Amino acid sequence: MHWPKGVEGLCYGGDYNPEQWPEEVWDDDVALMREAGVNLVSVGVFSWARLEPRPGEYDFGWLDRVMDKLHSGGIGVNLATPTASPPPWFTLAHPDALNTRPDGVRQVHGSRDTYDICAPAYREASRSIAAKVAERYAGHPALAMWHVHNEYGSATFSAHAETNFRAWLQQKYSTLEALNAAWWGSFWSQHYSDWDQILAPRATQYLANPAHELDFKRFTSDAMLGHFIEQRDILRAANPEVPITTNLVFGQWVPVDPWRWASEVDLIAFDSYPGDPGERAEQISALHADLSRSWAGGGDWLLMEQNAAEISTPYGPVSKTPGRMARHSMIHISRGSKGAMYFQWRAGRGGAEQWHSALVPHAGKNTRMFREVVDFGQALPSIAHTIESPVKTDTAILWSPDSWWATGIGHLPAPIDYFEDVAQIHRVLRDRGVVVDFVSPEGDLSGYRTVFAPSTYVLSRAAAENLRWFTAGGGRLVASSLTGAVDEHCQVWLDGYLGGLTDLFGIRVTEHLPQPPGELRALWNFGAAEKFCELVELRGAQCVTQYAAGDLIENQPAVTVNPFGEGEAWYVSCKLVDEAWDRLFEALELQGPGGQGVDVIDRGQWRFIINHTTAETQIGHVIIPAGSWAVDKTPQ
Amino acid sequence: MHWPKGVEGLCYGGDYNPEQWPEEVWDDDVALMREAGVNLVSVGVFSWARLEPRPGEYDFGWLDRVMDKLHSGGIGVNLATPTASPPPWFTLAHPDALNTRPDGVRQVHGSRDTYDICAPAYREASRSIAAKVAERYAGHPALAMWHVHNEYGSATFSAHAETNFRAWLQQKYSTLEALNAAWWGSFWSQHYSDWDQILAPRATQYLANPAHELDFKRFTSDAMLGHFIEQRDILRAANPEVPITTNLVFGQWVPVDPWRWASEVDLIAFDSYPGDPGERAEQISALHADLSRSWAGGGDWLLMEQNAAEISTPYGPVSKTPGRMARHSMIHISRGSKGAMYFQWRAGRGGAEQWHSALVPHAGKNTRMFREVVDFGQALPSIAHTIESPVKTDTAILWSPDSWWATGIGHLPAPIDYFEDVAQIHRVLRDRGVVVDFVSPEGDLSGYRTVFAPSTYVLSRAAAENLRWFTAGGGRLVASSLTGAVDEHCQVWLDGYLGGLTDLFGIRVTEHLPQPPGELRALWNFGAAEKFCELVELRGAQCVTQYAAGDLIENQPAVTVNPFGEGEAWYVSCKLVDEAWDRLFEALELQGPGGQGVDVIDRGQWRFIINHTTAETQIGHVIIPAGSWAVDKTPQ
Amino acid sequence: MHWPKGVEGLCYGGDYNPEQWPEEVWDDDVALMREAGVNLVSVGVFSWARLEPRPGEYDFGWLDRVMDKLHSGGIGVNLATPTASPPPWFTLAHPDALNTRPDGVRQVHGSRDTYDICAPAYREASRSIAAKVAERYAGHPALAMWHVHNEYGSATFSAHAETNFRAWLQQKYSTLEALNAAWWGSFWSQHYSDWDQILAPRATQYLANPAHELDFKRFTSDAMLGHFIEQRDILRAANPEVPITTNLVFGQWVPVDPWRWASEVDLIAFDSYPGDPGERAEQISALHADLSRSWAGGGDWLLMEQNAAEISTPYGPVSKTPGRMARHSMIHISRGSKGAMYFQWRAGRGGAEQWHSALVPHAGKNTRMFREVVDFGQALPSIAHTIESPVKTDTAILWSPDSWWATGIGHLPAPIDYFEDVAQIHRVLRDRGVVVDFVSPEGDLSGYRTVFAPSTYVLSRAAAENLRWFTAGGGRLVASSLTGAVDEHCQVWLDGYLGGLTDLFGIRVTEHLPQPPGELRALWNFGAAEKFCELVELRGAQCVTQYAAGDLIENQPAVTVNPFGEGEAWYVSCKLVDEAWDRLFEALELQGPGGQGVDVIDRGQWRFIINHTTAETQIGHVIIPAGSWAVDKTPQ
Repeated sequence: MHWPKGVEGLCYGGDYNPEQWPEEVWDDDVALMREAGVNLVSVGVFSWARLEPRPGEYDFGWLDRVMDKLHSGGIGVNLATPTASPPPWFTLAHPDALNTRPDGVRQVHGSRDTYDICAPAYREASRSIAAKVAERYAGHPALAMWHVHNEYGSATFSAHAETNFRAWLQQKYSTLEALNAAWWGSFWSQHYSDWDQILAPRATQYLANPAHELDFKRFTSDAMLGHFIEQRDILRAANPEVPITTNLVFGQWVPVDPWRWASEVDLIAFDSYPGDPGERAEQISALHADLSRSWAGGGDWLLMEQNAAEISTPYGPVSKTPGRMARHSMIHISRGSKGAMYFQWRAGRGGAEQWHSALVPHAGKNTRMFREVVDFGQALPSIAHTIESPVKTDTAILWSPDSWWATGIGHLPAPIDYFEDVAQIHRVLRDRGVVVDFVSPEGDLSGYRTVFAPSTYVLSRAAAENLRWFTAGGGRLVASSLTGAVDEHCQVWLDGYLGGLTDLFGIRVTEHLPQPPGELRALWNFGAAEKFCELVELRGAQCVTQYAAGDLIENQPAVTVNPFGEGEAWYVSCKLVDEAWDRLFEALELQGPGGQGVDVIDRGQWRFIINHTTAETQIGHVIIPAGSWAVDKTPQ
Repeated sequence: MHWPKGVEGLCYGGDYNPEQWPEEVWDDDVALMREAGVNLVSVGVFSWARLEPRPGEYDFGWLDRVMDKLHSGGIGVNLATPTASPPPWFTLAHPDALNTRPDGVRQVHGSRDTYDICAPAYREASRSIAAKVAERYAGHPALAMWHVHNEYGSATFSAHAETNFRAWLQQKYSTLEALNAAWWGSFWSQHYSDWDQILAPRATQYLANPAHELDFKRFTSDAMLGHFIEQRDILRAANPEVPITTNLVFGQWVPVDPWRWASEVDLIAFDSYPGDPGERAEQISALHADLSRSWAGGGDWLLMEQNAAEISTPYGPVSKTPGRMARHSMIHISRGSKGAMYFQWRAGRGGAEQWHSALVPHAGKNTRMFREVVDFGQALPSIAHTIESPVKTDTAILWSPDSWWATGIGHLPAPIDYFEDVAQIHRVLRDRGVVVDFVSPEGDLSGYRTVFAPSTYVLSRAAAENLRWFTAGGGRLVASSLTGAVDEHCQVWLDGYLGGLTDLFGIRVTEHLPQPPGELRALWNFGAAEKFCELVELRGAQCVTQYAAGDLIENQPAVTVNPFGEGEAWYVSCKLVDEAWDRLFEALELQGPGGQGVDVIDRGQWRFIINHTTAETQIGHVIIPAGSWAVDKTPQ
Repeated sequence: MHWPKGVEGLCYGGDYNPEQWPEEVWDDDVALMREAGVNLVSVGVFSWARLEPRPGEYDFGWLDRVMDKLHSGGIGVNLATPTASPPPWFTLAHPDALNTRPDGVRQVHGSRDTYDICAPAYREASRSIAAKVAERYAGHPALAMWHVHNEYGSATFSAHAETNFRAWLQQKYSTLEALNAAWWGSFWSQHYSDWDQILAPRATQYLANPAHELDFKRFTSDAMLGHFIEQRDILRAANPEVPITTNLVFGQWVPVDPWRWASEVDLIAFDSYPGDPGERAEQISALHADLSRSWAGGGDWLLMEQNAAEISTPYGPVSKTPGRMARHSMIHISRGSKGAMYFQWRAGRGGAEQWHSALVPHAGKNTRMFREVVDFGQALPSIAHTIESPVKTDTAILWSPDSWWATGIGHLPAPIDYFEDVAQIHRVLRDRGVVVDFVSPEGDLSGYRTVFAPSTYVLSRAAAENLRWFTAGGGRLVASSLTGAVDEHCQVWLDGYLGGLTDLFGIRVTEHLPQPPGELRALWNFGAAEKFCELVELRGAQCVTQYAAGDLIENQPAVTVNPFGEGEAWYVSCKLVDEAWDRLFEALELQGPGGQGVDVIDRGQWRFIINHTTAETQIGHVIIPAGSWAVDKTPQ
């Protein structure tokens, strides 16, 4: 097991930036951490300019003192390499190491993430500072874990990126003929006759090539992974016993494929920032947790960051009501996180994120916020015995980064919001008390009874075979509209879509029928569909329900099921509303304990209960007050 | 008559891109085309990289085989010069031949239209590839028509453009004094003392000069026309018997003035893409058709592209319901198109427009879509006898590209949507069964009884004289608000606006009165006005109706009429709602057959009827089912 | 007293651009000006290209004739230096003198304000042309005032700006250590080790540093002031008797701090452009007037521009109804403006602002507009005797440009609209008939009974001491939420916010609680709060009202008051709705004459009454018809 070295029980703590504060504050910090039960803090993220104030001139003194002080306080350190923000002297000396926007604008320093992940000078400097940090602290007794970089995700469209992209493409396709074929190069005269003609998908006159865009996302993920691996290997060489991680950030704009990264990190670490202040915050937190656990293959993972006191929304922050901080943390812990970490320990006095909430607010320890922090920190040891019990489920949802990215490129056959379609199934299942795993479309499906493929737009040949094998072997596959619309090269699956699995589903999809916004289409006894439907031709499947009305679709199949091998394949040919999915899950007999605002997670002998509602609730014999949580024995 | 050589009856077909498909598909294509009655396809658009994969290295073999195969199938070819997308090797070798945005960003290849229309290298390469194509195929028996380039419309703000712009301005104004006067150069210190000081209207600090912007649009139209003419002359020299066209695309952003282009093409070709899924799709299709016929001077024109199965809207595609494809095509044919062409024959498998609908969908021939295509293709020969009957009307609307462009620059006296104001009159007249022509403000108005000048913001001296002559000679002129606000240099017509035609209208407009959004102003017995009114001073005209209330305008003239010479000049001093226009048309005794969702077009002895409603309708003795169309004899 | 030399009574006139018109129009202009009672016009703004058509080649002949003609007509000239728009020849010769956007795009000429305020070549050319103008016209009898430049406000992010910014920072901070500390440089590795590493806040990857942004705003204000002073000193040397001004423009985007400029100009001149067509136009006009008078320290100021006939809104212009032009002008005059000037005298025929309204419309003098102009011009002399009576009030509102700028940077603790919060208090007080001054947070508060500090986000150490002194001395301080959140370096005031004045207010603010949009939180007997509340801990203050409900805040203090020294400090811990402020003002016994759409301003023995309502009203014995105004004796 990869675990922060020396940390006992569940991890509790957050990002700690002593370099921003005078040393007299540090003692106060350690005292407050002890009061709150903090046992792990992330140190050194963004500290490069303080560690190496001038080229080759290092100042580790302050960090030595911080590490020692934390160690004396019994607090482990998740020590970061500081490469997520090179110092101003570096970017000034290497302007080509600054990232470039698609329109060619090279961004300047003055924020964070001001680097070009593909620039040789930046890669060299990253290795160098990582080696310095490794050399000095690999044996420090406070060191619990290495935290490489921070939230990989800033893409670049520079000449450096293009050079690396071409090499990556040569590796992938070997020949230009193969690339031209994969990218459908004859469209719009995009046939390449030399590798040097291939550019990053920079600003162009009109629509871009989706295969080109998708490969560039994948390339960027690999380029970032290369940067990670270089540092990881340096750190590992310095002390093979310290686990190494990096904190994943999540969004369609993030060119990181966690499935590809999972095997390279010792521990999946995730930063969870749901962006909606309503109950969607809990829904998305649960989804984040299930994703993280699944990336970790059911193994170790850790919630590395969350917003302590607020939810950041597009229209500004919204406060978390009392207890919500603990409940959000418990959503993650109950779903397998080995603790609850936060951004950040102490609220910053200046800088761009001075208003990001923290465990220690600006107003100090005499605040209701810090009191909640202490209460929760004191409660955590009482559930430390649950750590080893794994989360188990026989239901899974496919998570396809390719589909997310590809549907973000635009110009689609119908309005599709891939993430929302995934989140919807997760949400409605959670409302029925069903806990799910996520799986890569090409991942191991054995052990699952039911697998959902929601709007899995990109379905590779390998993934299609995977689904075929799963169903033939007795699995229950439930796919929804647009699944298998295109293959791994964003090329349409001809003659019926469905990733070529028309025999599996016993249907052909012959047409997409996008509707005007706001129109609903009723299904017989099954709620309604919105946004679009598909025209389905039965080729052996049974019709579960039909459209009640509508041009072309009246009485046409809406939901179908087809026995295949030992299993069966369901298909939902439209974007259902929540109620219709609920109706389908009822038909599939998917029901767990809890639901409707009450999370109940059974992990072996331990049952986690989180009551997000404003009323007391009883689960089995356990009474949970409104807004509270508990861990009890799972009823036998 | 210029007509696709060798094509009999109405043209039917679409863009065909065999270069994107393996050759085994080609035979299937020809067979399906024959099944559907296709007799003309556009080939070679965007094929440059396949025709000239490396500089000076040509590969015509595939195209030879395609041409031969189509000819064997009896299908004519509308053969394109491929200049709308230069190959990547070209743009990489000539970065200055890529177009430049107003902010100076030079766009890269990776889409379509990645060229600088003013770059000498691009012009040279365009001539060269056009000559190669001409040389090889001018005598091919499949060749029915030349299709130069594609949808001219991509502007550039490069140094090349500036050089050419200056030459164009010198040609136009001769002296800087004249230019400074025309552009009102003393405003904001924009007086030029040397031609070299004149730039393209690139990104600047605040509002731009409207005369400068308008001239740059006109220049760009001429620059593109120059590119067309160069190719046309090469093609014509190769075989004077083959007609030459280019497909016009339509939008305010398109710097192409069709009136200037009409005399240079052998056949007006138009791509019709209405962007609204409601009944506005039919309204705009009819407007497109009437515009195209008018640009062709009532002569030959052809609907070159339309979306086969969907309507592209700002919020994504919306399916065409059954029969709508045929009805949209019939809107164009009934209004004079010599056929119905589509983008595209076969739905693409990859590339940016892989989801653009097609006559042969991804799911192949066994689809309701292809069945509709076959049905319509089989019906078309039955109306081929109508081709020679012209569309005749004595009602016309001015169409002023200058007004569209100038009102798009912003900073106007009132909220004005020029296109919508034109479309509104066209729409309400169509609802009354009245078919109209469009005319250039400086075009030939003889033969019309009634001419509308809706919001004709830019009115040149020549156009003003044209309207004076028309009215004096017995015509009925109906102008609406903001007509003649500025002259051809975007300079205000002083002392009453109206293009100086205050005597013609018998009024002066003394003030524009823009209203807060959403406010309506009632007219006596005449519906209401929205958005803004003008303050009108009577100078001899009669008042047709007045404003019922409103600061400054209560009881002031809203609609006026003035006898002038043998005719009369009406003026509508506000933006009327549809019902008010209908009331005015009733007063003008404008009424035709059909209307209200049923198009009835009488062309000599042939009457076209298209029922867009969801109910059966009877026109004369003919009963037309809901959503159907028919051609019958015009009642005598 | 600094006053336009030779102008008697209230100033009346506007921007006059004879260089745009043939000379025959000039005589007409002077005649119409005399008819309208115009006594002052601004001439020469933007005339550089006409005064110096080629480098070093001057043409003053036309301006000589204009000056002479105006003088003959008895009209004073507010003569501008033309530096707000360099001629095209200048910017072509000095491309580095064009301003640069944050993304590095250097903008071209073709608009106005196309200069880089920090470019040496531009500074040199500005001094040179100012000297030429000064030399020629300093002694001209028509010269009444100098108008330097126009609406300073166009920032630049060029290398020149960066050079000057660094010098400004060195002056301010002396050492890099001080700068790093002030900017909280350890956050995100922004520690600078060399002055050359400091850039303008150009396009960067993510959030920018607020202290950096704020200092750049202040620097830009000073850079512009430097440009002003250079010209001012040249003009003053040429004739010390002519007052010198520049017209201030107003908006959050404008990097000009009027408090810093006030002592450098002889007369505050202000351009008032309210952007809302409803009653907010009057509210904002009154606020503009009170701000201008306050910048002038209660002394001379002049409304230099306003839109004659329209209100420019984000969705286009909206006409001013009859009388509104006069009422808006009277708002300014009643609040201390020494006249009413307009943009512009004669409506332009061409150029970007050809549709900007004017005193003489395009349709000429025979218009209702010009008749209103004449009527108002003829009325003004009848109130000239009021000029010397000052506006006096014992109520003031803090106006903090730093707070406006800093809250515009984003990433705030709660949704805050600083300007709206100020405008709300001004508006509700105006509705109660209370006239207010504005004061700089560090300005002289003596003489005021009540001072409001609305959302004064940035509170410097000096300002905090100022408020302490004011309250201790007997003042009544009323601060609202977020006041004193950060100090002059955008660093949070720790341990309770409030600018460190927790003892003054007798409370600590422990947390900000931003709410979801649209939620209201009721206060006991006090209306409601929207957007956000603060959690307040009483430390001696009394609770005036509490929140009636809400997580964390139920029964917590909403409004508090604390006796301090001879005075008392009120605190409003939320964003109140208008009605709640009104309730508070009632408690504070703030009430004046008029209000509710009727402005009543008592200035010594003169009472100004403006009735903006649509009903007749009576104030004392005076009856004012709807939409009218009057000046009467103040009742004793």
